[in-house]
Amino acid sequence: MDTTTAGWTAPPGLEGVVVAETRIGSVRGEEGFYHYGAYPAPELAERRSTEEVWHLVHRGRLPDAEELDAFAATTGRLRLLPPEVTAALPAIASTTGAQSLAGPRTALSLLAEAEGFGPWLDLSADVIRHQALRLVAVLPTLTASLWRLAQGRDPVAPAPGRHLAEDYLRMVTGSEPEPEHVGALERYLVLTVDHDFNASTFTARTVTSTGADLGSAVVAAMGALSGPLHGGAPSLALDMLRQIETADRAAEWVDEALADGRRIMGFGHRVYRTEDPRSALLKRTAVELGGPIVDLALEVEGTILDALQRHRPGRELRTNVEYYAGVVLHLVGLPQELFTPTFAISRNIGWTAHAIEQMDANRIIRPRARYVGPPPD
Amino acid sequence: MDTTTAGWTAPPGLEGVVVAETRIGSVRGEEGFYHYGAYPAPELAERRSTEEVWHLVHRGRLPDAEELDAFAATTGRLRLLPPEVTAALPAIASTTGAQSLAGPRTALSLLAEAEGFGPWLDLSADVIRHQALRLVAVLPTLTASLWRLAQGRDPVAPAPGRHLAEDYLRMVTGSEPEPEHVGALERYLVLTVDHDFNASTFTARTVTSTGADLGSAVVAAMGALSGPLHGGAPSLALDMLRQIETADRAAEWVDEALADGRRIMGFGHRVYRTEDPRSALLKRTAVELGGPIVDLALEVEGTILDALQRHRPGRELRTNVEYYAGVVLHLVGLPQELFTPTFAISRNIGWTAHAIEQMDANRIIRPRARYVGPPPD
Repeated sequence: MDTTTAGWTAPPGLEGVVVAETRIGSVRGEEGFYHYGAYPAPELAERRSTEEVWHLVHRGRLPDAEELDAFAATTGRLRLLPPEVTAALPAIASTTGAQSLAGPRTALSLLAEAEGFGPWLDLSADVIRHQALRLVAVLPTLTASLWRLAQGRDPVAPAPGRHLAEDYLRMVTGSEPEPEHVGALERYLVLTVDHDFNASTFTARTVTSTGADLGSAVVAAMGALSGPLHGGAPSLALDMLRQIETADRAAEWVDEALADGRRIMGFGHRVYRTEDPRSALLKRTAVELGGPIVDLALEVEGTILDALQRHRPGRELRTNVEYYAGVVLHLVGLPQELFTPTFAISRNIGWTAHAIEQMDANRIIRPRARYVGPPPD
Repeated sequence: MDTTTAGWTAPPGLEGVVVAETRIGSVRGEEGFYHYGAYPAPELAERRSTEEVWHLVHRGRLPDAEELDAFAATTGRLRLLPPEVTAALPAIASTTGAQSLAGPRTALSLLAEAEGFGPWLDLSADVIRHQALRLVAVLPTLTASLWRLAQGRDPVAPAPGRHLAEDYLRMVTGSEPEPEHVGALERYLVLTVDHDFNASTFTARTVTSTGADLGSAVVAAMGALSGPLHGGAPSLALDMLRQIETADRAAEWVDEALADGRRIMGFGHRVYRTEDPRSALLKRTAVELGGPIVDLALEVEGTILDALQRHRPGRELRTNVEYYAGVVLHLVGLPQELFTPTFAISRNIGWTAHAIEQMDANRIIRPRARYVGPPPD
């Protein structure tokens, strides 16, 4: 039998195909519900810090007060860069990329190399767990430093005593962040830690399945996240709002865009058939922060949903995570170029947890293709 | 219905699952046969240069003499590095990694950033094809330069008038390569261009499916290839031969290794149930090159196959590509640290072709997981 055509033919994009078991979390698209372990993710985002949820996802449970302090202290120290990576950052920052994750990806690749990350098959569980914390902790520092260098400004060194969200904002802006901005960013980060087998998480697991080091897994996942069909779009939704400019122009803009076949950013999701539960909390967070862009976003959202209903009556397109994510990240003071890199910072918690889970019951991920070209014989 | 558990549950590692159609090539595991387009791959390896097969895989047909000259001239020029990448190489080379692809991965990531590779969704077919050639052409230069820098030697600049295999050997060794070494390397490179949906090729397609740039796809694939269960093992087979040292010690060594549960490198393959067709030609190539290590490899191969037959009678383990690949790469003058990076150089031809094919009928690759942790409600 020819094994090329043996077995299943999967639906395009592996849609709906269950490829692994996980204890990290899941998405129930029909219910508009997702969770990390035993906790609905939006509840965690309302009440817990990034460190608490990071501990939950990496250690299997929420930390008590003492564990949280220890975890925050450890991961705070892991935000500090090794000197050889610090020295290389100006060269990485000076290349003006068309892809906002390319710089952090290059820097993280260098860091994993500099710190001698090797194939996990050869490492103890403790070393692997430490590497996972390191990769998550250091990415805010790399991201903020590269961005400031590209602006011609000096990087701001990490403050290990602070929590990740606060320190990241501080390292980007160079000033003491407002508590409500830290809180809003914290919500965004917690909401985007994990979301089933999205393309980047699946990439991290596929790379890990070969025995490759954790650095390779995260670098690969960053590449997947950079695609506009995955993580590369939050700034496009904000761009759209800026193009529309005033709410009274929204209906015309949307009709034109749909007639031209352009995509409307921030609406529709592969999995959710109801409202995206991430969108609901981000919308509330945006409203709490307030401002003209929020008023515009609220009005335009209604107009777009009406128009989509009219143009594509069967499809039930709802607001997805990207629409209000861009508004919130803008309001907390992050520049648009950092929207996707900020998404990478939180999702890195999920990537590394999934990579470690993959190691526990590993089988190399190696599907097949069906050959449809000219016959070789 | 809960979509988390809807649909198929795939076998572990997606084994045997057909996830795409391809015109690039395929593997018929039961027949011990694989091909690129209309040509059996071992036949191509015997008679064609890397450039001819690269043209076949990227353009859909073998070039005529004039097309080959033009293709070699174009890709030869693309081996030259931009100055900002050249300037960064010493910093990348100075970090001593535990993973031999980490340096080339970092350098290629920087190059894609420096040259402004952006999401393919925004690019013309011509730009994408050019980027694909660039990524393949430049990797030998990056690999050889980083290796020489790490040895404390000056990099050797590419000679655009030469073909890839010859120029790569020259850039590594710093001297004029022997024609039979170039020929043997050429065979290895052609044999390893493509091989169905191995983990790295699948990674390149998954990353591409998000709309990410070609640089992200190749950087991710390099991460997957670095794993010892995929591309990270050819030097381990050679290490094993060196540990065994003399043929009369082979039987004892293998019995001990199997008793200790250690893996025997260079035997068995997920897909092939017969001899690996790559192994046959590499074995012949090794015999043609000759030397004590070849004699040892031939004797030890027989001993190991006998021992595996005795210890695992049901499993029909045969010699795979890695066993003689290490011997051949050693004999042509490449250091062991470059075995996996050399594999990346040839497989990059396949990765980029698959990435472009993915773009033609794209659907984001996003499978599901089944949640098996504590219930959230």
